[in-house]
Amino acid sequence: MGIEIERKFLVDHIKWAAFNKPEGNVYRQGYILSDVSRTVRIRVTNKSAFITLKGGTTGISRSEFEYEIPIAEGIEILKGFAVSSIEKVRYNIPYKGHTWEVDVFEGDNAGLIVAEIELQSEEAIFEKPDWVTKEVSEDGRYTNASLSVNPFKNWN
Amino acid sequence: MGIEIERKFLVDHIKWAAFNKPEGNVYRQGYILSDVSRTVRIRVTNKSAFITLKGGTTGISRSEFEYEIPIAEGIEILKGFAVSSIEKVRYNIPYKGHTWEVDVFEGDNAGLIVAEIELQSEEAIFEKPDWVTKEVSEDGRYTNASLSVNPFKNWN
Repeated sequence: MGIEIERKFLVDHIKWAAFNKPEGNVYRQGYILSDVSRTVRIRVTNKSAFITLKGGTTGISRSEFEYEIPIAEGIEILKGFAVSSIEKVRYNIPYKGHTWEVDVFEGDNAGLIVAEIELQSEEAIFEKPDWVTKEVSEDGRYTNASLSVNPFKNWN
Repeated sequence: MGIEIERKFLVDHIKWAAFNKPEGNVYRQGYILSDVSRTVRIRVTNKSAFITLKGGTTGISRSEFEYEIPIAEGIEILKGFAVSSIEKVRYNIPYKGHTWEVDVFEGDNAGLIVAEIELQSEEAIFEKPDWVTKEVSEDGRYTNASLSVNPFKNWN
């Protein structure tokens, strides 16, 4: 377990398109439970699957418990237990001592690109790549659980 | 994962009290989600912890996915994520080629003793010990998830 401290930003699409990035991984995530203080998520990638419990958010921190499970079971759980889902391509970008996780959303969230950085403390200092723009850490619409039920294409 | 096929019976308290049983294990179980077709449960015993997903019941069968997790995390999840819980002492009783799981409930379910047998098929043949009485397999009140919100002491 642990406390997850994360900051989240929007991405400049033009600079991101021009950026020389590594290969991405397809993530399919389903939400088994999602309320204000508790999320139970199943994540399936090309090569692994995880079941994850996340607690309520306090500022940019939340408790998190994550367990790897067999991928075939992850697929079955995604089909049988999730009530909403998202799909995205995840890129891991090392930059000045931190790793940025950039999510390029697909499906009903196509057009949205979000960059996250996980920190050791809420006050941790970090530098931003030039394709990182506005911070949205405390805007609940950008949580993946929220995007699974209120997707980007419905905003406005 | 698998399909869980289970039959459930009440227990004769007097015969059970006289029965020469092995040591039991204390089980604390919390329900993170429990609706008609999906249950997410955390189980913590003296020596282990599990997170378990169960699908909807069809007759006496239901899908089940169970993962062992670190016990300290199990305790934290029980505290932080469960909305209802039960406590019981579990006895495993080998009998004529099957293992009976006998649950002696505590707290608000004290006074209830239930014996379960897990089967390979719905038609499997088995013999009952003499302390096994009325079948309650299809009575939803006896699921542990239901007992956590509608405990035995409130019945009638």
